[in-house]
Amino acid sequence: MRNGGISRTIGQSPSTHCAMFIEAEADPSLSKAQYKAREARLRTALLKAQYERLQRAEQSLLIVVAGIDGAGKGDTINMLNEWMDPRHIHTMAFGLPDAEELARPPMWRYWNELPPKGRTGIVFGSWYVPLLLEAVRKKPDATLLEAHAAQIRRFEAMLAAEGVQIVKLWYHLSAQAQAERTERLLASPETAWQVTPADRKVRKKYDRLRNAGQVAIAHTDAAHAPWRVIPSADDELRAVRTAEAVLAAMRRRATPRSVRAFGAPSPAVHLVDRLGALDYDAKEDKDDYEAELGLLQGRLARAVRRDDFRERSLVLVFEGQDAAGKGGAIRRVTRALDARQYDITPVAAPARHELARPYLWRFWRRIPRQGRIAIFDRSWYGRVLVERVENITAPTDWRRAYGEILDFERQLVRHGAIVLKFWLAITPAVQLERFREREKSPYKNFKITPDDWRNRKQWRAYADAANEMLCRTDMREAPWHLVSANDKRYARLQVLRHIVETLEDQL
Amino acid sequence: MRNGGISRTIGQSPSTHCAMFIEAEADPSLSKAQYKAREARLRTALLKAQYERLQRAEQSLLIVVAGIDGAGKGDTINMLNEWMDPRHIHTMAFGLPDAEELARPPMWRYWNELPPKGRTGIVFGSWYVPLLLEAVRKKPDATLLEAHAAQIRRFEAMLAAEGVQIVKLWYHLSAQAQAERTERLLASPETAWQVTPADRKVRKKYDRLRNAGQVAIAHTDAAHAPWRVIPSADDELRAVRTAEAVLAAMRRRATPRSVRAFGAPSPAVHLVDRLGALDYDAKEDKDDYEAELGLLQGRLARAVRRDDFRERSLVLVFEGQDAAGKGGAIRRVTRALDARQYDITPVAAPARHELARPYLWRFWRRIPRQGRIAIFDRSWYGRVLVERVENITAPTDWRRAYGEILDFERQLVRHGAIVLKFWLAITPAVQLERFREREKSPYKNFKITPDDWRNRKQWRAYADAANEMLCRTDMREAPWHLVSANDKRYARLQVLRHIVETLEDQL
Repeated sequence: MRNGGISRTIGQSPSTHCAMFIEAEADPSLSKAQYKAREARLRTALLKAQYERLQRAEQSLLIVVAGIDGAGKGDTINMLNEWMDPRHIHTMAFGLPDAEELARPPMWRYWNELPPKGRTGIVFGSWYVPLLLEAVRKKPDATLLEAHAAQIRRFEAMLAAEGVQIVKLWYHLSAQAQAERTERLLASPETAWQVTPADRKVRKKYDRLRNAGQVAIAHTDAAHAPWRVIPSADDELRAVRTAEAVLAAMRRRATPRSVRAFGAPSPAVHLVDRLGALDYDAKEDKDDYEAELGLLQGRLARAVRRDDFRERSLVLVFEGQDAAGKGGAIRRVTRALDARQYDITPVAAPARHELARPYLWRFWRRIPRQGRIAIFDRSWYGRVLVERVENITAPTDWRRAYGEILDFERQLVRHGAIVLKFWLAITPAVQLERFREREKSPYKNFKITPDDWRNRKQWRAYADAANEMLCRTDMREAPWHLVSANDKRYARLQVLRHIVETLEDQL
Repeated sequence: MRNGGISRTIGQSPSTHCAMFIEAEADPSLSKAQYKAREARLRTALLKAQYERLQRAEQSLLIVVAGIDGAGKGDTINMLNEWMDPRHIHTMAFGLPDAEELARPPMWRYWNELPPKGRTGIVFGSWYVPLLLEAVRKKPDATLLEAHAAQIRRFEAMLAAEGVQIVKLWYHLSAQAQAERTERLLASPETAWQVTPADRKVRKKYDRLRNAGQVAIAHTDAAHAPWRVIPSADDELRAVRTAEAVLAAMRRRATPRSVRAFGAPSPAVHLVDRLGALDYDAKEDKDDYEAELGLLQGRLARAVRRDDFRERSLVLVFEGQDAAGKGGAIRRVTRALDARQYDITPVAAPARHELARPYLWRFWRRIPRQGRIAIFDRSWYGRVLVERVENITAPTDWRRAYGEILDFERQLVRHGAIVLKFWLAITPAVQLERFREREKSPYKNFKITPDDWRNRKQWRAYADAANEMLCRTDMREAPWHLVSANDKRYARLQVLRHIVETLEDQL
């Protein structure tokens, strides 16, 4: 059934063939001699490429493994580990999500395991599973397919722009070769165990699986994350083709700038000066404050203890000028919470192992499971604030962050999270006053650093960045609350009130 | 009910008082003026101590918070975060274990969250919970109590020896003060929500809780992990005493050498030369090999797919001389496994963030959940092998590792893990042959480094270390299998056979 070389033959029933699978369904193979020569060359080249990438540590590589059942995907993972240095390869194999994974948005588990720059991950049971499961149905829902595909495209574009290279391998063979392969394995007790129940069922499902592959490839092929179809009827050819695809990917150098993850750079918008338009004189009466605070804290405490909160989660983001009172506002919130229910993540400059991944990685790792509360004292918005103002990140990169952040927050909301974002706003005069107070206080002066004075000089640049951020990322499902914070009591009550009202409204 | 100063008064019913709670049950308090003066001094000192520790990064600090319900433990956590720099404090608050935690040994979640050296963790819902739950019962089981306490003592001794400092705070007040405090809070809607159902029940349970505290403290007080009873009827005094206890702990410098975690250094044993006594001529016939391999892999594949394996897990440890064939043996095992079911952890020198924690930390993070398989290519035994031979770790430290490792493995086994340890043994001549082969092969020469040649010169020292390790850590529940590996085929079949037979026996 196989042709001797790797020449291409059109199969008997052209109707079941489409261009992308023509070669694979001709079940080409390699002779032993051809294989031996290529194996030696490829292994040496792969190792060399692997070490060079490790050395440079510019990009990580994800090898997505998918395809027809029984095409030898498992063997391929073993082969890659054998041909390369397995100490620097991480097999990311996902089955059904476990309880911990179900309690977070679907993409969490992939984020969680991303290898650092320089390293390689083999992904098995990837983010293509929902798309393939839908595509394999008798009557796939076209809208759902498109939604899955769009999510995948955004995810991969963002990874590519952030230094994660992706190559996607579809293992394919003809229905007949698949059946023969299964029978050959089943014939001997030494190999019969290699046939899984899925392999046995594949014969019936072959056409639908094939179609699903076609749909997935057509919808998600991209220059920065290409699909390669690997003919899989012959073990040797499969190994060689896999190695060639991986080698080609490894040799491709990073050009993240060329990736337009979210289309063209954001168009110029007419920026409303929301910070400037705020009423900075808003004040809370000292006498009413304590009583009102207690009542709001009581309502908050009751809301998050409600049974239906167990299926939701709460994400609170605090941003604002230095000395705007973020810490104080957070403490007024947490006082109403059980210490076992919340986590505070103070966000500073990323550490080395964080810089080795996409910038959102460290935040994905801190998103709350269902029933829990995550509080961010500064957040992922640093990308479009400090990183923009201080020129840490190139404009192309921080510009695409608006879209990536909305996408991230939408994933949280879709999974049941309530996302609230607060900007505590003060005026320059009040900041100065508070800086001086802090310097005088023996146990507050740790809060004031030369950075704070330097940032202060950039007041206008930060305000512009904040206004643009407020404009571009204020979405109904994850709104910004701009809070006047010259009066600390007023700001604290406002924050609590927004949280309490949203919770009472949504639960 | 409170006395004005902090003088000590013996309560009315001496029978309900024991020495450790005398002061706390007198419900002492502080005047506002006394408080103000101390607060300022303590806050400054705490911040200073905190920054010094961060700078030195010699030790982390765990503050264990426990005590009578309604004594204000939650407020205390807020206070510590307010008085110190909260960015370097991690609140580790544990409730009932979630699914992810239940799938691993009980101590896993504490290991998982250990702060790095220099930082502070506040532990709430700690490893004392099982002990306290038992002690609070009407008729506690003395044997169980002792077992819980012994586990805690070993855990804390090990942490202390590894640079994790521990201070344990028991929040305490009289039954009457507890009741009054609850009623005061309940009287106003602004504060009523602060009273939890547990607080309401405490009055009934007061005596038993008190007794449980007494038992816990008596059984687990240690110089390296002392208990401090904090009088809690008065908010101000509670804050001051907490701060004083934390400050004292922060100022205590590390003296890990003085901690005898597992008693005196291991006595000299008469070492059996197990490596020397091995039959290195054991061989497998080439023709039988493939068939036998397939059959064993089939048995392995079936065993780990059995339903009852879902409640178990498998931990495989591979050690041996360089070039003994660990990688090849591992691949023969994984070929029988589903890629979604196992993880391989190659162990090299620890990274910086790993060195900032106890040496077992990085391995705890890689232990498998139920139903899964973890394969370690080198392991925690590096502590008593390479770290010993290369003088990386002081003898007092690697000597205590024997006991710590047994304790670690016993926790895995007790939770249902099957732990198998393999030493693949070769002779110096065979190693030399393999080194030379590797140097010649274009895609194996990455496996050979100057380190390998250097280690080879230390052959005898490694053999001695291995023999002592085999002698001291070969336990029935987690046995060592010493495998003659001059013939790779023989070694691979032996490894598979041990795994298969153990699984078939235990499932």
